[in-house]
Amino acid sequence: MCGIVGIVDAGGVSFPLYYALYALQHRGQESAGISTFEGATLYTHKAQGLVAEVFNSHTLQELRGTVGIGHVRYPTTGSKVPENVQPFNFRYQGLNLSIAHNGNLVNTAELREEYERRGQIFCTTTDTEIIGNIIADALRTSKSMEDAVRFCMRRLRGSYSVVALLNDTVYAFRDPLGIKPLCIGGIDQGYIVASESVAVDALDGTFIRDVRPGELVRIDESGLSSIQIATANRTARCIFEYIYFARADSVIDGTLVYDVRRRIGQKLYDANPIEADTACPVPDSGIAYAAGYAERSGVPFVEGLMKNRYMGRTFIMPTQQQRERAVRIKLNTVRGNLKDKRVVLVDDSIVRGTTSRRIVTMIRDAGAAEIHLRVGSPPIVAPCYLGVDMPTRAELVASGRDTEAVRESIGATSLTYIPLEDLVEAIGCGEQNLCTGCLTGCYPVDIPGEKSCHCVVDYVAGTRQSDLSTFRAGKEQS
Amino acid sequence: MCGIVGIVDAGGVSFPLYYALYALQHRGQESAGISTFEGATLYTHKAQGLVAEVFNSHTLQELRGTVGIGHVRYPTTGSKVPENVQPFNFRYQGLNLSIAHNGNLVNTAELREEYERRGQIFCTTTDTEIIGNIIADALRTSKSMEDAVRFCMRRLRGSYSVVALLNDTVYAFRDPLGIKPLCIGGIDQGYIVASESVAVDALDGTFIRDVRPGELVRIDESGLSSIQIATANRTARCIFEYIYFARADSVIDGTLVYDVRRRIGQKLYDANPIEADTACPVPDSGIAYAAGYAERSGVPFVEGLMKNRYMGRTFIMPTQQQRERAVRIKLNTVRGNLKDKRVVLVDDSIVRGTTSRRIVTMIRDAGAAEIHLRVGSPPIVAPCYLGVDMPTRAELVASGRDTEAVRESIGATSLTYIPLEDLVEAIGCGEQNLCTGCLTGCYPVDIPGEKSCHCVVDYVAGTRQSDLSTFRAGKEQS
Amino acid sequence: MCGIVGIVDAGGVSFPLYYALYALQHRGQESAGISTFEGATLYTHKAQGLVAEVFNSHTLQELRGTVGIGHVRYPTTGSKVPENVQPFNFRYQGLNLSIAHNGNLVNTAELREEYERRGQIFCTTTDTEIIGNIIADALRTSKSMEDAVRFCMRRLRGSYSVVALLNDTVYAFRDPLGIKPLCIGGIDQGYIVASESVAVDALDGTFIRDVRPGELVRIDESGLSSIQIATANRTARCIFEYIYFARADSVIDGTLVYDVRRRIGQKLYDANPIEADTACPVPDSGIAYAAGYAERSGVPFVEGLMKNRYMGRTFIMPTQQQRERAVRIKLNTVRGNLKDKRVVLVDDSIVRGTTSRRIVTMIRDAGAAEIHLRVGSPPIVAPCYLGVDMPTRAELVASGRDTEAVRESIGATSLTYIPLEDLVEAIGCGEQNLCTGCLTGCYPVDIPGEKSCHCVVDYVAGTRQSDLSTFRAGKEQS
Amino acid sequence: MCGIVGIVDAGGVSFPLYYALYALQHRGQESAGISTFEGATLYTHKAQGLVAEVFNSHTLQELRGTVGIGHVRYPTTGSKVPENVQPFNFRYQGLNLSIAHNGNLVNTAELREEYERRGQIFCTTTDTEIIGNIIADALRTSKSMEDAVRFCMRRLRGSYSVVALLNDTVYAFRDPLGIKPLCIGGIDQGYIVASESVAVDALDGTFIRDVRPGELVRIDESGLSSIQIATANRTARCIFEYIYFARADSVIDGTLVYDVRRRIGQKLYDANPIEADTACPVPDSGIAYAAGYAERSGVPFVEGLMKNRYMGRTFIMPTQQQRERAVRIKLNTVRGNLKDKRVVLVDDSIVRGTTSRRIVTMIRDAGAAEIHLRVGSPPIVAPCYLGVDMPTRAELVASGRDTEAVRESIGATSLTYIPLEDLVEAIGCGEQNLCTGCLTGCYPVDIPGEKSCHCVVDYVAGTRQSDLSTFRAGKEQS
Repeated sequence: MCGIVGIVDAGGVSFPLYYALYALQHRGQESAGISTFEGATLYTHKAQGLVAEVFNSHTLQELRGTVGIGHVRYPTTGSKVPENVQPFNFRYQGLNLSIAHNGNLVNTAELREEYERRGQIFCTTTDTEIIGNIIADALRTSKSMEDAVRFCMRRLRGSYSVVALLNDTVYAFRDPLGIKPLCIGGIDQGYIVASESVAVDALDGTFIRDVRPGELVRIDESGLSSIQIATANRTARCIFEYIYFARADSVIDGTLVYDVRRRIGQKLYDANPIEADTACPVPDSGIAYAAGYAERSGVPFVEGLMKNRYMGRTFIMPTQQQRERAVRIKLNTVRGNLKDKRVVLVDDSIVRGTTSRRIVTMIRDAGAAEIHLRVGSPPIVAPCYLGVDMPTRAELVASGRDTEAVRESIGATSLTYIPLEDLVEAIGCGEQNLCTGCLTGCYPVDIPGEKSCHCVVDYVAGTRQSDLSTFRAGKEQS
Repeated sequence: MCGIVGIVDAGGVSFPLYYALYALQHRGQESAGISTFEGATLYTHKAQGLVAEVFNSHTLQELRGTVGIGHVRYPTTGSKVPENVQPFNFRYQGLNLSIAHNGNLVNTAELREEYERRGQIFCTTTDTEIIGNIIADALRTSKSMEDAVRFCMRRLRGSYSVVALLNDTVYAFRDPLGIKPLCIGGIDQGYIVASESVAVDALDGTFIRDVRPGELVRIDESGLSSIQIATANRTARCIFEYIYFARADSVIDGTLVYDVRRRIGQKLYDANPIEADTACPVPDSGIAYAAGYAERSGVPFVEGLMKNRYMGRTFIMPTQQQRERAVRIKLNTVRGNLKDKRVVLVDDSIVRGTTSRRIVTMIRDAGAAEIHLRVGSPPIVAPCYLGVDMPTRAELVASGRDTEAVRESIGATSLTYIPLEDLVEAIGCGEQNLCTGCLTGCYPVDIPGEKSCHCVVDYVAGTRQSDLSTFRAGKEQS
Repeated sequence: MCGIVGIVDAGGVSFPLYYALYALQHRGQESAGISTFEGATLYTHKAQGLVAEVFNSHTLQELRGTVGIGHVRYPTTGSKVPENVQPFNFRYQGLNLSIAHNGNLVNTAELREEYERRGQIFCTTTDTEIIGNIIADALRTSKSMEDAVRFCMRRLRGSYSVVALLNDTVYAFRDPLGIKPLCIGGIDQGYIVASESVAVDALDGTFIRDVRPGELVRIDESGLSSIQIATANRTARCIFEYIYFARADSVIDGTLVYDVRRRIGQKLYDANPIEADTACPVPDSGIAYAAGYAERSGVPFVEGLMKNRYMGRTFIMPTQQQRERAVRIKLNTVRGNLKDKRVVLVDDSIVRGTTSRRIVTMIRDAGAAEIHLRVGSPPIVAPCYLGVDMPTRAELVASGRDTEAVRESIGATSLTYIPLEDLVEAIGCGEQNLCTGCLTGCYPVDIPGEKSCHCVVDYVAGTRQSDLSTFRAGKEQS
Repeated sequence: MCGIVGIVDAGGVSFPLYYALYALQHRGQESAGISTFEGATLYTHKAQGLVAEVFNSHTLQELRGTVGIGHVRYPTTGSKVPENVQPFNFRYQGLNLSIAHNGNLVNTAELREEYERRGQIFCTTTDTEIIGNIIADALRTSKSMEDAVRFCMRRLRGSYSVVALLNDTVYAFRDPLGIKPLCIGGIDQGYIVASESVAVDALDGTFIRDVRPGELVRIDESGLSSIQIATANRTARCIFEYIYFARADSVIDGTLVYDVRRRIGQKLYDANPIEADTACPVPDSGIAYAAGYAERSGVPFVEGLMKNRYMGRTFIMPTQQQRERAVRIKLNTVRGNLKDKRVVLVDDSIVRGTTSRRIVTMIRDAGAAEIHLRVGSPPIVAPCYLGVDMPTRAELVASGRDTEAVRESIGATSLTYIPLEDLVEAIGCGEQNLCTGCLTGCYPVDIPGEKSCHCVVDYVAGTRQSDLSTFRAGKEQS
């Protein structure tokens, strides 16, 4: 996962980009980067680390100009390498192109091979570089970003929300199935596109709308315009954004994430209305779920686990023996809220099961009488090929194990997952518009060896003028 | 405010002290320090910064020995000076004494003057140095820590929970009124005394009991013993520890802080049972209050404000104009949970009123129909002389202003404080055992120009043997 | 300017590369980087900063393998950008190529245009990326590094000493005119190639020989071999390496740099044998010159200027007024060695004249009776296109100004430059084997608008086998 | 050893103090600190680390006022503890006293015991705290700094150059024997006192004169005045300041250090005029000696050893095996200047002999035909009790070993020390005015178990007015 942002602001973009990346920091803590453009120069600063570590006031001041893009990166296994830090730059024939990407392609190898055969030399093994190359290559022929992105969309298979800086213009587009989120906001003297609406909020901006699947948005100093590059018979929004990944205060494709989680919490009670003393969230992501559960059930919302807010990267790992003693520095039990209680423990999801097992053990050690684990997602049984860093089937505790076996492995008194239909209903856009690959093993794009729920994409030609719309911040509001 | 800890552990103390200070970090972020003792040497490392910044694995390894104390410090106005960083050391006549203190004396000036007249030269202006000097001075005469602390207690007026390292022994004592908290826990190969029980939890230890007001606890490799130095006709526990300062998962003087806050939340509804759509906490401290409110009222607990978990010291302050745009990076509104809603906003306390005003404005801007502010403490109308960094009366919004005036100033639809009797009942130990100075203007110790609710302290003489109790971890448990 | 190094060592290369880069740090302080290879993985760590800042023991341990290359970079104007930090990586068709370069191409624009026309997309504006692309592109066709480098040499115009890591093999080559230095050393369990012999010394290795102009050296675990790719009718060694850039303890193309500078110092006296009291070096680079001057003249070598050894990047620049007061923190005068003395001040070169003027003023203020400036290079009158960061003609104090005018501008009593023929004689390889572009305006490669002293390069075909030589460290020594 | 500085400057002192400490950094790299005073507040910032690490522009701006003192500290064995970082502060009875000290007392234990008996509690084990306590204690009685320092001088035995900040006045005094240096300079809008004249130079100030042994200097906004507190029948200037410790560009007690070292170099030749090819200094401290040797002998000054200027604290220590390979990163041999040469190797002193042995081995490995070691000090045979961190007799290679045995141990072809009388003559003030304890075992103060060369100190009473002199910068100059 990653977070992306593009901003045009007449008052300068480096500080707004920095604040927007702060708001998107939960989408990636491995590295951060910003590219801006002024005069004929592309400025880039990027490095491994948190936003707070990568930038200082000096580096922000050096990032000149009123147009720019930013990126935070979540490492996928084995790829913590400095050269993968985004944005990626491409400079050729007087064009300066900088690209940042959230998502994952499934035809990377195929595209690499084809382009390598044609003579392209790649610097990294990332799909972002491939996207950049396809665009750059297409631009050499037509000089039109619209054509380049149309060509690009025809070639890419997978998920991709992209922001691009081409000289003094910011472009943003989203794959035809809209797998990864991307939205538009108006700010004081310009516009912002960002992975989540919280980045718009961070700048005290006005949320305008989501970028449509298959749409290309263009922002420069004269305003914002857009064109539909491709349309599909459905969307395939990542269901895991709602379950876990996005911030609860984000609105994604018209739906407030908090609302989804709260409704799931309510349905978790409906699906299995047991008696209990407390509804206890696993912090921080379980809070909205537990609130919904408490609301519907009348079981009081009471925290039984407390997170230490000061844990950071520099925490010194103790030796093994000390480690066991020190485990409760990060997450402590509120014994008085658990002892002799029938506890409903509400969490967003179970992946490997290790964390759940540890937490259930802690709560049992604190004296809970019963521990009823309620999970805000159906069992995760299949890997994600489209951008969420999921483990393989072998590591997924629910893959090839029924609920009773999982319950036993985790040690809970009872275990209930939200049924898929309830989850879909809580989101509200219909299962046919969601990617449920990790829950069903059926994916919206063709992946060798996996089942596909076929999506049909149509690349709209010749509709440029008719579809074009231009607006300024403040004129059109949600 | 500060956090203190003392540990004796046969397996080494620097790492346990470090973890304990992590658990107490909320009590002070200005500086951190650890003293340990081995052979004939007192080792100290201390500096300004968070625990994570002050220590690294190298400095922890240099802190040798199986006995030690630690401190985190919350700066009081105008005192961010490196030389005030605790623990303080005293070395004389072959004795090595290190002291860390939580609390505030009210007769500092008087004591300084007396000791200066007698020839003592002070290095700092802190009351901690005075405490150390009195003890050190008394030890010169009697060589008995018991006598020294008895003498010390007779002289000190104010609040003081103290840990002291005298060569290879850890001592801990608490003022006769027990104003500031201090508790005892058993750990693997020894004991811990700490400001809050969460430090015991952090080491996976067993909470034993609180240090009694006026009690002196002694820990060395042979075990733990204690002696009652002074007794009083009442206690004067800081009420603000329950309201705001302590971690919700701490148990202070037998009462789980979370429970107090949750009960207050319940009573806040009882005191004014209005209709509303959501009970929304001010994060993070308002959560337990809002949970209690929701539980009693049936109004659903729903978060309307989200904190950014990545804000740290290195966040670059924008210019004034950017500042206004960037205000929502730290705290964002969840618009969908607020728009057109009748919101009960639950907070722990109102001090200056500035933060409340800002938050109420944000919520109103998010479209809330009504904002009913419910506050977990009575109006704060008087300063604190006993260790909480409160502003002067002039800066306290509730000082000399009735509730309606405060409501208007803050901009809420309605405003209700918890009545003092309800707060006292929620804590459960009776008003006569609490310090309510900041709420009533009546203080448990004599302060020139302020009212005093007289406390009588008796310095118990000759009871050493009879009162002595020795126990080992695991033998006596809560 | 930059420093490059390549190492194959059975005992691991990351630490040896780190030490070698320390020895080459004077060649570039802007950034540092290392690439290594193990299994099928190319590891790279690189960032802006000194070697000491970029690497720590953790990052060094992550750089696995027994083959690798390293780079330190000296920024050329306006190019302090993170993305220019070397080595550069290229990954395609199963090949992993990492490249580091010292030098400067003069046909960059032309090559870029050609490759861009053919479809190549560049990420940076550096010539290093072009070299890498040409090699990578050629390798796609022939899979032979020898062919790729031969093709590369035919295309590149300018100076280039290059180290390349292609999977588990280190390659190194030098342009046919040998403009920038590159040498070979034997170390414990392998070989090193490096910009200067001091890197060999740093590993306690054995200097073997310089890489020949136009030669390609190949090192892998089985040993070292080489092939002559191109030959020329002359060489064009950078004269500024001897004058200023290289460390005095380096041996370049068979000549000890210290020796050259000392001989120049001697000749400076011979050319103008005046009477004086002290021969005073401008530290640090003037010391060898002044030692030679003193040796020949009998005028005692006495330091009149002392450098502060603790100045670093973090020195806080004072305000303008303080700046004037603080100028002598960096460089102090030894008044007692200067007052009333006839001083011969010996420096390596004069570029803009600003530093010389400031130093002459300081020495005059210290009371010197006469200041005779002796300069170890002829007047610098033309820019460098081949890798030394020289200013434009307009900024060069000696460009279009005779010696008397320069003397007056600097404020010295007298000023003498070393004549070119004396400098050439001090180096010993004949003017026809040196690049004297900055001194004569005549360059060894064609540069539009500049004079060229024609060099003829012959690309040797079909000599691979006969020219191949293999040797192990310790067998062949200087 | 330590470096001290005191400044009064109407334009603010924190930046001038910072620059002065930079100039004195060679006197101590373990810690740095500054105290300033403004209004009624004493500001202090101090920490472990180099000046560049301890201060940043923010901390310097916080150090307000136009009066202040500073300190850099060289750790003596086993005392790298944060609490020993100077300046030390004392605050009592409305007085704010800050003290920084260079030197070492020999009656510390005795004074501690006496003051502890009288009730004083010490925080550290340093003699600086004792000096501060004696002064502070005396000030309580008389309120006159003159009386306090007079009393102090009567009690202290050992070396002490002290700067003190008492509210808005800077005081400086030097022990009656003038063991450690201290001098006065005039700066733009005030005065500076500092350990060495290079600190005056760093501020572009005017050297005025040395502080006289036994003199107390007072500086405030109205100017500078002084009074003679004690006189002695001789001085006892530390001979090691001239040999090694002071910067060569400092003038100490009227003598330029460079001049002393150069004269010693000359005398080293006179004492043993052998034939040789090169006079090679051990950098950096041997350079002035070697220059003098070359000047007198006609043997050319040629560097055979080069120091890497980039070595710092963060250099990663390799494993043992790598260590041997990496030894030449710090100090490299210039093989071409040594091979087959008869080398005169000139160093300032031999302490343990380890470094000399290593260097001689390196030079031999570089192929030198003969290595004649010439040493700028007589054999060091006894420890220093007065402030130089010398090892015990057992560790001194020359203690109980004749020159031939030392030569053999080091591996040199020949070894000559400068005779004491020549050294004394080079300094020029007569042996009776120098402390030669480490060379003769005879000390200027009584030390139990050691020989004493008796000094008689007279504490001048009642001469305050007559001895008073007031002057402003620029009026009186050297």
